[in-house]
Amino acid sequence: MSDSANPVTVTPILDRVRLPADMKGLSDAELKKLADELRTETISAVSETGGHLGAGLGVVELTVALHAVFDAPRDKIIWDVGHQCYPHKILTGRRDRIRTLRMKDGLSGFTKRSESPYDAFGAGHSSTSISAAVGFTMGRELGAQTGDAIAVIGDGAMSGGMAFEAMNHAGHLGKRMFVVLNDNEMSIAPPVGALSSYLTRLYAEGPVQDLKEVAKGAARAFLPEAFHEGARRAKEMLKGMAMGGTLFEELGFTYVGPVDGHDLEQLLPLLRMLKTRAKGPVLIHALTKKGKGYAHAESRPDGGHATAKFDVATGTQVKAISNAPSYTKVFAESLIKEAAKDEKIVAVTAAMPDGTGLNMFAQLHPRRCFDVGIAEQHAVTFSAGLAASGMKPFCAIYSTFLQRGYDQIVHDVAIQRLPVRFAIDRAGLVGADGATHAGSFDVGFMSSLPGMVVMAAADEAELVHMVATAAAHDSGPIAFRYPRGEGMGVDMPETGVPLEIGKGRMIAEGGRVAILSYGTRLAEVLKAREALQARGLAPTVADARFAKPLDTDLIDQLVANHEALICIEEGAIGGFGSHVAQYLSDQGVFDRGFKFRSMVLPDTFIDHASADDMYRTAGMDAPQIEAKVLELLGVAVAKRA
Amino acid sequence: MSDSANPVTVTPILDRVRLPADMKGLSDAELKKLADELRTETISAVSETGGHLGAGLGVVELTVALHAVFDAPRDKIIWDVGHQCYPHKILTGRRDRIRTLRMKDGLSGFTKRSESPYDAFGAGHSSTSISAAVGFTMGRELGAQTGDAIAVIGDGAMSGGMAFEAMNHAGHLGKRMFVVLNDNEMSIAPPVGALSSYLTRLYAEGPVQDLKEVAKGAARAFLPEAFHEGARRAKEMLKGMAMGGTLFEELGFTYVGPVDGHDLEQLLPLLRMLKTRAKGPVLIHALTKKGKGYAHAESRPDGGHATAKFDVATGTQVKAISNAPSYTKVFAESLIKEAAKDEKIVAVTAAMPDGTGLNMFAQLHPRRCFDVGIAEQHAVTFSAGLAASGMKPFCAIYSTFLQRGYDQIVHDVAIQRLPVRFAIDRAGLVGADGATHAGSFDVGFMSSLPGMVVMAAADEAELVHMVATAAAHDSGPIAFRYPRGEGMGVDMPETGVPLEIGKGRMIAEGGRVAILSYGTRLAEVLKAREALQARGLAPTVADARFAKPLDTDLIDQLVANHEALICIEEGAIGGFGSHVAQYLSDQGVFDRGFKFRSMVLPDTFIDHASADDMYRTAGMDAPQIEAKVLELLGVAVAKRA
Repeated sequence: MSDSANPVTVTPILDRVRLPADMKGLSDAELKKLADELRTETISAVSETGGHLGAGLGVVELTVALHAVFDAPRDKIIWDVGHQCYPHKILTGRRDRIRTLRMKDGLSGFTKRSESPYDAFGAGHSSTSISAAVGFTMGRELGAQTGDAIAVIGDGAMSGGMAFEAMNHAGHLGKRMFVVLNDNEMSIAPPVGALSSYLTRLYAEGPVQDLKEVAKGAARAFLPEAFHEGARRAKEMLKGMAMGGTLFEELGFTYVGPVDGHDLEQLLPLLRMLKTRAKGPVLIHALTKKGKGYAHAESRPDGGHATAKFDVATGTQVKAISNAPSYTKVFAESLIKEAAKDEKIVAVTAAMPDGTGLNMFAQLHPRRCFDVGIAEQHAVTFSAGLAASGMKPFCAIYSTFLQRGYDQIVHDVAIQRLPVRFAIDRAGLVGADGATHAGSFDVGFMSSLPGMVVMAAADEAELVHMVATAAAHDSGPIAFRYPRGEGMGVDMPETGVPLEIGKGRMIAEGGRVAILSYGTRLAEVLKAREALQARGLAPTVADARFAKPLDTDLIDQLVANHEALICIEEGAIGGFGSHVAQYLSDQGVFDRGFKFRSMVLPDTFIDHASADDMYRTAGMDAPQIEAKVLELLGVAVAKRA
Repeated sequence: MSDSANPVTVTPILDRVRLPADMKGLSDAELKKLADELRTETISAVSETGGHLGAGLGVVELTVALHAVFDAPRDKIIWDVGHQCYPHKILTGRRDRIRTLRMKDGLSGFTKRSESPYDAFGAGHSSTSISAAVGFTMGRELGAQTGDAIAVIGDGAMSGGMAFEAMNHAGHLGKRMFVVLNDNEMSIAPPVGALSSYLTRLYAEGPVQDLKEVAKGAARAFLPEAFHEGARRAKEMLKGMAMGGTLFEELGFTYVGPVDGHDLEQLLPLLRMLKTRAKGPVLIHALTKKGKGYAHAESRPDGGHATAKFDVATGTQVKAISNAPSYTKVFAESLIKEAAKDEKIVAVTAAMPDGTGLNMFAQLHPRRCFDVGIAEQHAVTFSAGLAASGMKPFCAIYSTFLQRGYDQIVHDVAIQRLPVRFAIDRAGLVGADGATHAGSFDVGFMSSLPGMVVMAAADEAELVHMVATAAAHDSGPIAFRYPRGEGMGVDMPETGVPLEIGKGRMIAEGGRVAILSYGTRLAEVLKAREALQARGLAPTVADARFAKPLDTDLIDQLVANHEALICIEEGAIGGFGSHVAQYLSDQGVFDRGFKFRSMVLPDTFIDHASADDMYRTAGMDAPQIEAKVLELLGVAVAKRA
């Protein structure tokens, strides 16, 4: 590997591989070179696009081995989470577009069924791959013309409950399928949980090096025979000096490993042998290193999980400079201030200490911060238990991942009116991560719950106050949402002041049309207002702050003094605008003729692009808000986006 | 036990126990008698009220032992699911109300925090107890004035992913807490999954009888000493001849068992020893029998899981006779007919083969029916995998439990447009099971998803057609909801005919006001229409059939020909009515003055009662619909419910 010294990619073998079928004639030595070239190409591509780097580099050899041995797309290789799929994309007909990764109209940063038949199952969230593999497997058993299903799942994702549910079912069914446990001791954050300790013990007690020799020898020489005699003996052979994967075996899987996931001399014969001989469900425990083969990634604490564009030689990331702090940071700093005043405040994250900013909280209050692993269901009910014991838990989960804990929010938090504080980061459209990560639905699914207080911050100063509001609100559950990325650059308050529950604020008085904004579209609304002001048509603008309870006084006032009301929110139908519409119709406001519009995300999953681009596609930027006002005023016949 | 021969309960010891504190002075022999009396009283009470019988009878001794040894409410005994809590309620100050179980204004059939301080954590859904116990435990570690947290969880509930997530976290934290694995080899249906096989092996390989002697001797004589020397030796002692709970030990728990969960001579010393000596997390594996001690329950295949009122002597259930088939049965029979025509149709249930009617399907098509256990997340993504392989999966899950698979519906089904068919049973309010089981939110959370088709059956004949519609719809996901209980008694079609997607139907023409009903409120709407007709004010009535896509032609027509439109649905805000409101406001219908009302469930969790009572409370019965029409017509000033 000398790629970091030479960013020009020379890839003679990779150049001959357009599809996995082109790999079938390659020798093992050539496959090894292919892996090196694939790594170089991956680094080169991500240096130009940014994206998830570490995970892909960790599975370069696994990717080559799986595609060399199995027959995709007939065999279904299912990448859990999907962010490690860049090498897979390069090998499956998408090398020519790999430098469009995560860009508008470019390749998705995850697997995506509509992008390629080689993406057997799309992902973005973790821990789904085994369930999908069981589905493909039983489809095949019932006559579907598919081959083997192979789930490749990280050790972090394995801690997600649904992975366990799927293992439990697969073990029960007993049908041939493969789970490759890609164990890199590193999900996004350092691993937590007893399972992780268990995996560490698995290989700590049996050196990989020794096993490697056993595995190589066994797989090449007499393993097929042994399998012929019975799977159990072969398996024990393979496990060699390792203590064995009892946990997985108890669940009905044949455990194989641990194997060096970067050693093709080990992977290739092993997979070939398993492809020929395996009968029931097999778990292959592969040890890998996140960021493998690129020193600047390997040396980062997160293995180069996600990166901006970077210089290959130096690893230096090219990042836009911003004057405003990120919402995430503002949340974390605000929570730290509140926690200094109230020792009952605790924080919970599901494997996202960095992403939620709780790493900062944890440094100051290690005992009061809990990273439960990729386990959103548990995170929510654990928080409910903390609240029931009198603590004041802040449960910080991205909007899109909070969907995983939805039943727990209903059943354990809302019905019991327990004061769990939900800090909902990455609310609204999120940009390059695309549709799987969009935080589109939380306003709807939270606001429909009786007793839930639901806020959205219009800017980073508002977020400070909402953290204080949540800290002070101890009579029931409360949630506040805020987007990915930098704030607006507004003046920041020294300290958060609790807001009055259910009270919005007037931003700018105007005439005829009122816009009631919920969340950070406020900035676009104000831009639209400016443009309208130039035409003498400045609307009134207010910030709702609360989707629940609604500020009905403010709404009444806006209705009384205007001929039209526009609501706008960064979410799908069923949320803030629907609550306002229900209120207005219940009040008979529509009976006497009143213009009302609710601007929500359109009825489509919006593909990755910049967040601004996505909101433009959604019809929710300043020009489109302006057009909506003009349309209501009958000033111009602006076509609805 | 002679209770079945003698329904008069003679309970001298139980009479002296109003609260667990009253048990502290009882001898072990008296506690044993108390358990017998508690069983008698439980059977007697449920014979009068109906409810969950088998689960409670299975934990009588555990309940006595836990309350005798631990100090609730300071110690937090957390009953998973909560349906086994009747004996617990009898011992914790609620015996005088136990014959009001599941009745309006009576005791809940589950644990409920607002009912008693002894109900440490409410439940209704499964697999939450360990998460809550970890929460209480860490609250205590951080200074909350609570004692031990003890989760009592069944083997079925243990297969739910969040239980695994919680075990993983608890093992990692390493703090003292208790999980009692109540292993009765019987969740609601016979157990499925590899975990279940594992548990069976655990006790099959080490006879309980032998262990009992070991445990008794050990716990009484030298175990405290052994614990003093180190937990490991004592534990190995306790495990005796059993093969040990490796799976749980790998997750960081000390495994104790299996123990006979009906033998107080074993349970009491064991729990006393553990209370005195335990340091980290402990899993106690107790073997119990569902329906224990009541022959008529024990002999039923489901252990007497749930029952109507019954005669104690004979076990004969007192059931109302109905002329209409249940929606569940209609669904199952319709699916069977469709499956006879199309071998790609398969069915998936999450531990509810009887409840969903899929037991009938499984009898005919065992290979095409999958019970994945209590694992809704996996059920949904497994179905997505089946769909991706070309099958036509019907994923039958109650509305309230579908919340568990919400993220999977968004991420694995909707975004990928996979044709999974969701059969949503128990939609709307469900009666005696109360708020935790209400199917209030599915219309909202399904209809907000791009590409999802969302139907509701107005009666059982409609359900037949909707099953056919779902079978025929192979271009994307589709859902249909239907309530608990019997149908309307309408004429049944010979065979289902696929409905045109997004098309409702006119039911009765009328004037001035139109009511657009979604779901089975249609019957109440028609009752209201009859009353209004007597006053010469018969409204037009239509059945929307689809919340998504909306039948905009039908809506346009109703708007054009009436002065008011009322939508009604058995769901919370954010669903059908919100979609109609969004359409009407987008179309400018409100601009020119049009009366619109959306009748949805109120913003409160409605306590258990009969479903009719609950809908009355919700303001959604015929008289209240009538009042709403009159209010809109200005005929009478009817106060809104």
